[in-house]
Amino acid sequence: MQDNADLGVFAVQLESCALDGWTQLPGSVTASPELLAMDVPERTDRVGQLMARLHARGLVQGWRDELHPISQFFQTETLFEMERACLPYFGLRGYGIHVNGYVRRDGQLFVWVATRSHNKATYAGLFDQMVAGGLPSGVSLIENVAKEAVEEAGVDLADLDNLTSVGSLSYRYETRKGLSAKSLFLYDLELPPSFTPINLDGEVEEFNLVPVSAVLESIACNLRAWKPNSAVVMIEFAVRHGVINPTCEPDYLRLSKYLR
Amino acid sequence: MQDNADLGVFAVQLESCALDGWTQLPGSVTASPELLAMDVPERTDRVGQLMARLHARGLVQGWRDELHPISQFFQTETLFEMERACLPYFGLRGYGIHVNGYVRRDGQLFVWVATRSHNKATYAGLFDQMVAGGLPSGVSLIENVAKEAVEEAGVDLADLDNLTSVGSLSYRYETRKGLSAKSLFLYDLELPPSFTPINLDGEVEEFNLVPVSAVLESIACNLRAWKPNSAVVMIEFAVRHGVINPTCEPDYLRLSKYLR
Repeated sequence: MQDNADLGVFAVQLESCALDGWTQLPGSVTASPELLAMDVPERTDRVGQLMARLHARGLVQGWRDELHPISQFFQTETLFEMERACLPYFGLRGYGIHVNGYVRRDGQLFVWVATRSHNKATYAGLFDQMVAGGLPSGVSLIENVAKEAVEEAGVDLADLDNLTSVGSLSYRYETRKGLSAKSLFLYDLELPPSFTPINLDGEVEEFNLVPVSAVLESIACNLRAWKPNSAVVMIEFAVRHGVINPTCEPDYLRLSKYLR
Repeated sequence: MQDNADLGVFAVQLESCALDGWTQLPGSVTASPELLAMDVPERTDRVGQLMARLHARGLVQGWRDELHPISQFFQTETLFEMERACLPYFGLRGYGIHVNGYVRRDGQLFVWVATRSHNKATYAGLFDQMVAGGLPSGVSLIENVAKEAVEEAGVDLADLDNLTSVGSLSYRYETRKGLSAKSLFLYDLELPPSFTPINLDGEVEEFNLVPVSAVLESIACNLRAWKPNSAVVMIEFAVRHGVINPTCEPDYLRLSKYLR
């Protein structure tokens, strides 16, 4: 980054390897004293100017026009807001919600699998949870779940009484853009057998009600047909509901351990 | 250990700190070539002789007369069997099952909390799951759950149809004896409101049906009344069933992450 000095946004520090043999990360980005002295709207504005310049030069891609609060931990004090597309370039954590829409029928579990629209910017045409989405700034988790459930799947508000918060899933992975760090808040939504999801916002191509065992077979044999994190959410669902269990899965302890 | 040479069981290696600044564990125990050349019953016998000598000298305490299979991972090839009380002295992992017996009533969740018998060798008089126990050698998880559920809580075999494998919990902690490493296999058992557990093996003083919210309050205010790992299993249950959720728990992501 060569834009630091004039915008006073970030200072880049390159640290050499320590002498005691511990390898440190080769570089880090810290906020400049000038940025720290500002209030949140000013910081957001200043960071936004830098991001816009990086974007104009093609150094930041996939702009979504969606501000994301940056804080040390989830929903602790907001330090500033930043365009969501920029997060991986700085390894900053993003948050999202995934809802497993499921049906019990004759003692067997079925889940609603969404096929993402072919027009989506990311993972177009791939399998996904019935409802999923990033968490925008200033929206609570439950508001976000309710909004997405209605828009994406036409869920009736009364059916949301069965919504249960069931845990979380955090991961980081390297992308072309940098380090993508995500935490997903997971929800189960048991639906009446009579329910059929209807997509209202054009983000879903179709929905299919599939036995969990068939979903796992699809993940095992055809993983590329799945949005990667949605496949992991499905596996977590199968562990939590006993479809993957220590009797059928030799590597159960390790599998279960890493699903959080 | 000075018994190695004559029994040919273990060789103790003390490794010095490496020069590159990485600290290694100060010591390790490896099997002697003589032990490795034996078959499983011979190895078990030879290790057993050494353990009996350590026990006779008071160096191993809490003998249970229960053999535990030692393998690299859960239920992979048994290398030898060892008295369960000896595991922490060598940091070897033990396995167990914990069953959350719960009841849904008017949309609220209640769990059956056991008070451990005052005569138990460990954690006497403390709160525990309705059913819990170590996994003995040669018994499958489901056999163990069924056996303990009948003996400890008088569960009807028909009610076991509602048993669900829901995940695992692995941890290690330092004890006076050494390093205790445990993996618990977790199960939920939804029970009819008419069910009342009856203890048949003298290991439980009494059972109480308690709202999950009150259980959490007890853990928060009176943690010493709980068997430690059973309190963690209760917290995991509350996360999985949405009683602890991201709206009520500011540190939800970290809490959820470490519960596996």
